[in-house]
Amino acid sequence: MARLPTVEDVAAAAGVSRQTVSNVLNSPAIVKESTRERVERAIAELGYRPHMAARRLRTRRSSTIGIHLDPYAGGISGVVLDRFVHALTERAGDRGMRIQLYAARSPAEEIARMGELTDGGEIDAVVITGTFHGDPRTRWLAERAVPFVAFGRPWGDDDVSDPAHLWVDVDGAAGTRAATEHVLAVAGPRAAFLGWPVGSGTGDDRERGWREAMTAAGMAGERLSCEESVGGARTVAAELLARDPDVDGIVCASDSLAIGAHLAAAAAGRPTLPVVGFDNTPAAEAIGLSSVEQLPEQVAAGALDLLMGPSGNAVDPRPAAAGEAHVLVEPRLVVR
Amino acid sequence: MARLPTVEDVAAAAGVSRQTVSNVLNSPAIVKESTRERVERAIAELGYRPHMAARRLRTRRSSTIGIHLDPYAGGISGVVLDRFVHALTERAGDRGMRIQLYAARSPAEEIARMGELTDGGEIDAVVITGTFHGDPRTRWLAERAVPFVAFGRPWGDDDVSDPAHLWVDVDGAAGTRAATEHVLAVAGPRAAFLGWPVGSGTGDDRERGWREAMTAAGMAGERLSCEESVGGARTVAAELLARDPDVDGIVCASDSLAIGAHLAAAAAGRPTLPVVGFDNTPAAEAIGLSSVEQLPEQVAAGALDLLMGPSGNAVDPRPAAAGEAHVLVEPRLVVR
Repeated sequence: MARLPTVEDVAAAAGVSRQTVSNVLNSPAIVKESTRERVERAIAELGYRPHMAARRLRTRRSSTIGIHLDPYAGGISGVVLDRFVHALTERAGDRGMRIQLYAARSPAEEIARMGELTDGGEIDAVVITGTFHGDPRTRWLAERAVPFVAFGRPWGDDDVSDPAHLWVDVDGAAGTRAATEHVLAVAGPRAAFLGWPVGSGTGDDRERGWREAMTAAGMAGERLSCEESVGGARTVAAELLARDPDVDGIVCASDSLAIGAHLAAAAAGRPTLPVVGFDNTPAAEAIGLSSVEQLPEQVAAGALDLLMGPSGNAVDPRPAAAGEAHVLVEPRLVVR
Repeated sequence: MARLPTVEDVAAAAGVSRQTVSNVLNSPAIVKESTRERVERAIAELGYRPHMAARRLRTRRSSTIGIHLDPYAGGISGVVLDRFVHALTERAGDRGMRIQLYAARSPAEEIARMGELTDGGEIDAVVITGTFHGDPRTRWLAERAVPFVAFGRPWGDDDVSDPAHLWVDVDGAAGTRAATEHVLAVAGPRAAFLGWPVGSGTGDDRERGWREAMTAAGMAGERLSCEESVGGARTVAAELLARDPDVDGIVCASDSLAIGAHLAAAAAGRPTLPVVGFDNTPAAEAIGLSSVEQLPEQVAAGALDLLMGPSGNAVDPRPAAAGEAHVLVEPRLVVR
């Protein structure tokens, strides 16, 4: 690598001392304006860039946000988190922040990684994803006073009115409500729901949207459930179609479930039965299913706004006021 | 955050000077063994961790590898690169290295980001993906002597025998060869190929595997092409099936093309026509198509082996010997 310009080169070019250059970089307010302009010109002309490690030591800021990646598990919906990481990287870059990745196979391992990185001053804040009831990560982060935001609610009683920490999430109930209203409008009143077994925050939220839309329309549809898999959904949906050949449509908690339901409908001679998925994955698009789009780009923007303020370029170490402590993104139904 | 142990705490606990602790951390060979063991014990007991920024300044190493993420473009096959990033993060973590992400919308922007990060000492090496003919990134990296490895060949004359730089890639021709042999074995001799327009390194490589397998079997099948899209592939495959109703199978350059071909076959009354995709994406799995699996986990392991040596825990600044300068991963046909 060609030799890079040093702080001494800048000082010589601007005709000032090394300390003055350092002041311009770290405490510009204390430098006379004409001197500051001369130093800044020399910095620009020489293309000088301070070594980031030195800046990190001086400022005790890394300008880096950490986020963990799960081991790749396959599946249709993993793409939503990957899209979120893409969007977070782009938007963080626009604000002068870096994204650092770490792998973790369990919440305990994720806590160990976060500990190393915060102890070492390598990250200023973290983003956690996939929150769940009794999540040990949020407790650990709060105890250590590490700035963080969660993609996913705390899933407690006062999530929205009095959130325990910063969070951004997608309004799943709003998504399945829109999906159900769509089926009622284009097909008929017998809209079933195919979700996951009761007990997951995300799944129960999506079920609620369907139930509320059915109640508002004066209907009571059938609620089915199975674990997240195309094959399982196909079996459950085939049984429904055999029991009730007049069902008008199926609203699903995920695209995997929707693809299974669609395959069952096609095999039962009803290939055009309205089936709506959730996540708007490439797989749903490829086979032409309607789906609820999570808008991960808006989730990423919301996460950074919460951590840094809407126009900030550093992590805000103070806790946000209660009113700003969450962002709930309204998803969008993509009709095909 | 609770106060963290400092180098002074370690020195006091071990009964040595601050300088001796520093020597143990940075030049352990010059410290007497019994002293070194005492200091290491104190470090372990106190849970002391040096501030990474200070270590980076001392060692001029960041222990960080940079990789860029494209803007999320949707599509079925993007998942392969995301899987590669997952695997790279896991394996780098196992070797004590970090992965830093940056967004870039063009090769020029990627070069600008790499310049900032290497100038600032924030990364020791980079991984580039999606190499193409005349790629300006590899030229820039070579001129700046930045250690790097490419996921993708240089796509020149002497790629394999005399590679211009470290690279790891998937043997696309071996994948389509296996796919073609599978169609010939289970269906019959009329195996068509559906690929992209001629001129992309990756696409031409995949076409070659089909052609070689057909030649070896004494056959000459039809070669079709269209841009990467489900809809385009469906149109082209429908025309083929109308022209030649006796075609025995279609080998495709991607899962998007394969899904289009499968939809055309199903519409033409041949839902069980053997169609083989490439990338083994969740979409292909969901609708039950055979596909060539790229094994991104092996690609990630190969990339790190090239950058760090098979058992190294730091980026090797010397260029690898010619014989070790690339890794070609043999993909695996997944039959469904």
